[in-house]
Amino acid sequence: MTAKTKIGKRRKANAETSSAFYQERPKTSRKATGTTAKTKIGKRREANADVSSVFYQERRKAIVDAAAAAFQERGYEATALADVAEKLKTDRASLYYYFGSKEQLFQEVVREGAQRTVEFAEAIAKKNAPAKAKLTEAFRAVMGSYSSTYPYMHVFLQGNFPSPHSSDDDWNAEAREWASRYYYAIRSIIQQGVDSGSFKLVLSVGLTTMGVLGTVNWAHRWFKPGGKLAAEDIGEGFADMILNGLVSS
Amino acid sequence: MTAKTKIGKRRKANAETSSAFYQERPKTSRKATGTTAKTKIGKRREANADVSSVFYQERRKAIVDAAAAAFQERGYEATALADVAEKLKTDRASLYYYFGSKEQLFQEVVREGAQRTVEFAEAIAKKNAPAKAKLTEAFRAVMGSYSSTYPYMHVFLQGNFPSPHSSDDDWNAEAREWASRYYYAIRSIIQQGVDSGSFKLVLSVGLTTMGVLGTVNWAHRWFKPGGKLAAEDIGEGFADMILNGLVSS
Repeated sequence: MTAKTKIGKRRKANAETSSAFYQERPKTSRKATGTTAKTKIGKRREANADVSSVFYQERRKAIVDAAAAAFQERGYEATALADVAEKLKTDRASLYYYFGSKEQLFQEVVREGAQRTVEFAEAIAKKNAPAKAKLTEAFRAVMGSYSSTYPYMHVFLQGNFPSPHSSDDDWNAEAREWASRYYYAIRSIIQQGVDSGSFKLVLSVGLTTMGVLGTVNWAHRWFKPGGKLAAEDIGEGFADMILNGLVSS
Repeated sequence: MTAKTKIGKRRKANAETSSAFYQERPKTSRKATGTTAKTKIGKRREANADVSSVFYQERRKAIVDAAAAAFQERGYEATALADVAEKLKTDRASLYYYFGSKEQLFQEVVREGAQRTVEFAEAIAKKNAPAKAKLTEAFRAVMGSYSSTYPYMHVFLQGNFPSPHSSDDDWNAEAREWASRYYYAIRSIIQQGVDSGSFKLVLSVGLTTMGVLGTVNWAHRWFKPGGKLAAEDIGEGFADMILNGLVSS
């Protein structure tokens, strides 16, 4: 268990820790120091601003949306706070009232989408249902999350995060924790399928999980909302392909 | 056909243009202006250096290798030519004798791997063999290419190339052309499976191709050579998973 982190403690408190999903997580801690609730951003915001004001919250949301679009267009490194300010027809100083740095803005951009996707996947993994049904539901949820948070998850997956060059260890730990929880949720579904005899793998559970995840994770490179098919239906189609294969009968 | 480009012309000259693969390519040109043989790099190199010298070629290869490692560690944007020079215990001026800019160095880093992978995929797509066998062979080749060119293909797929913000239109067109040829090679294999009745799809051929490609393309995020299983065998395992599915019997 990784119960030393805040995330770990919350998980331990909230989760049915005896379920297969949690038992399956590696015993060795990855030394995560993840924080979600009280970040530097949160403290700053609370100190400087009336966070309960509707204007404040709307403005903050507008900045996050503009930043998400800028990061997706240019990539994280090439985006300057001035680019985000330009999109909002304001100046950098106004942004600093809400966010302390480009890095903190990026974190806010991806936190919501990543957290929601991970929590969806874990909730599905813990359900009492056959592995086939869970994989289909998880794929629907992940693709749906890409669509509803567009372009947030794209920005996260497009970047090379967590990065060893980032100065923000808390953030790196948080991002690693999401990636790990997401991986283990999908892996636990595949393991359940193997244990119950409904899945037959040709590779290890770990490698199979990577291949399975690839179908939906790669979507950050090409998926855009608004096509003929709903994101959730594309997810279901990928799950069907993974479950039943391309070969006809 | 996109025979207006040099790549297109070469393809037209070399290929069996009546094959299903080429017929399937979209009729509308993507206005590619790709160049491969006589780039600015090539001209500069020829003008300034004795390109036939063993020292020159070895030194050039060492720079490309150091750049590949730096780009993979830091990402393209965060890497400076000084970082590459530092790896080689030399200075930036020495690098300029071989490469005109970071951008040209990046192009050289990925060109070899990308081109080889695309040409493998196309050669397999054109073979006279069942679709199942071709998909397996293509997946073996793509994963093998990740391994043998590591980290070149990783750098290419990790970056957000082609980028609308790059100043090098020729390079963008070349990268788009590779991505497109790779996609159509895999797509033509899937289409062959459908046409021959051996594949049954739940999504369109295009979406299915994206899902299929995801399993191997996503590998740029986690695959490292030197594991227990050869890259080619992982590729074969993914092909088996895609062809036959996870569900037992």
